[in-house]
Amino acid sequence: MHTLINGLPASTVSAWDRGFLYGDGVFRTLRIRDGQPVWWQDHLDKLALDCQRLDLPVVERSDWERDLAQLVPRLDDAVLRLVVTRGEGVRGYQPPPRPVVTRLVMTAPSPAPDSQLETEGLRLRLCDLRLGLQPRLAGIKHLNRLENILARQEWQDPSIHEGLLFDTEDRLISAVQGNVFLIQPGRIVTPRLDRCGVAGVARQRLLAGAPGWGVQVMEADLGRDDLEQAEGVLISNSVMGLRWAGQVDGRTYPRPAVLDALREAMHGQA
Amino acid sequence: MHTLINGLPASTVSAWDRGFLYGDGVFRTLRIRDGQPVWWQDHLDKLALDCQRLDLPVVERSDWERDLAQLVPRLDDAVLRLVVTRGEGVRGYQPPPRPVVTRLVMTAPSPAPDSQLETEGLRLRLCDLRLGLQPRLAGIKHLNRLENILARQEWQDPSIHEGLLFDTEDRLISAVQGNVFLIQPGRIVTPRLDRCGVAGVARQRLLAGAPGWGVQVMEADLGRDDLEQAEGVLISNSVMGLRWAGQVDGRTYPRPAVLDALREAMHGQA
Repeated sequence: MHTLINGLPASTVSAWDRGFLYGDGVFRTLRIRDGQPVWWQDHLDKLALDCQRLDLPVVERSDWERDLAQLVPRLDDAVLRLVVTRGEGVRGYQPPPRPVVTRLVMTAPSPAPDSQLETEGLRLRLCDLRLGLQPRLAGIKHLNRLENILARQEWQDPSIHEGLLFDTEDRLISAVQGNVFLIQPGRIVTPRLDRCGVAGVARQRLLAGAPGWGVQVMEADLGRDDLEQAEGVLISNSVMGLRWAGQVDGRTYPRPAVLDALREAMHGQA
Repeated sequence: MHTLINGLPASTVSAWDRGFLYGDGVFRTLRIRDGQPVWWQDHLDKLALDCQRLDLPVVERSDWERDLAQLVPRLDDAVLRLVVTRGEGVRGYQPPPRPVVTRLVMTAPSPAPDSQLETEGLRLRLCDLRLGLQPRLAGIKHLNRLENILARQEWQDPSIHEGLLFDTEDRLISAVQGNVFLIQPGRIVTPRLDRCGVAGVARQRLLAGAPGWGVQVMEADLGRDDLEQAEGVLISNSVMGLRWAGQVDGRTYPRPAVLDALREAMHGQA
């Protein structure tokens, strides 16, 4: 594992960094394959958008790319974490008027391939935790992730791969570590994320790319009934790509015929 | 400023500390006066309770006190920050089965005294941000504080001292950096904090201590009307103690006659 902090090799951050004090920052998790960051421009665009939502200065593309040039040549397949925090502060919650952000690039080993996931699909549970509604933070991948942690604490069984999250008004929102899609007759739907949840890059690529492959993918408010009536369930994130669920809370679902076309749609764009 | 991390002088934490990765931890902010931590046992009790709520190991009192013995003799009046995080982790949201917590004791200068606050009272605004409802995190002083930051970003005017926060269902909850009390005929009420908000030690001391001074203090669901009809408004936190509001959103309130008795009630306990 390698970490660059503001462009320099380092492994620690200031205890007064607002990322550590308050979770005052945003991040991205993405894949390096064949020495290249996957969906790079999408991730930079999303990171910039999330920074703007929190009034954080946007890190220049050239800064990230100088960091990558230091790290990625050593990597073939890895997971990359990009972090932007509001930097140091000692004045309580009030952000400094001209924050000097802390920028991190961190690498970790990529997950081991698991061919069983592909043949049998993921096993999912329904989480008890309900996501609170906070439109001001909805969609942002920020550093305040205690809800995800509480949800992930709900199970220890390693044969359960993921959990589905609902909000306090019982709408289906996402998985603990990814977005969710339901296959319905003639269309694929994914939850709206304007009240809570994280709008991931893989999800955005499917929404944008699927029409070009003849598949209608749209956002909607979805509930437990929609989940139970779905013809199939898919989970997306930038590390795993697109996976299908073979079991959700004991109910079984088939491998969706449209899965391969959707993967092409996700990967096939620029 | 001095910082001890796991008992040793240090100023940085691992970039893989879950406190930095996810805000996976809790903290306390308290006052050192005359070389002694104020309301020490209350803060240790609250820290232990918050750790239990998140399934974090509880730090032993003796560990904190060894840290204080290193730091506090150098301090007369200061602000102390105690932090407990779930330590290092690289496995995503899932907590390690046996986490090794990171324990920090951080000191900062105490705020400059401001006698005008005492004679004229605080000036408060009403924040636009609405706190999301999350009963699983309600009451806990955890490291996920982006809602407070968004609220604090709403004003730059230094003559405004604090903001009042409502939840998404328009209940009054707290100030940005403290708890709130409304003076009503014959009683004092403070918002229930079982859906969102932070239940501070100063608030708890008032709830527990006021009856002994002949003042009824109780929790209730409160709304905008209750605020407008209140005879007085008080703000509590462990750094400032108990303050009165002279203006809230342009409306003026008198200095409550009961203020001194309430301060005695807060400070007079063991």
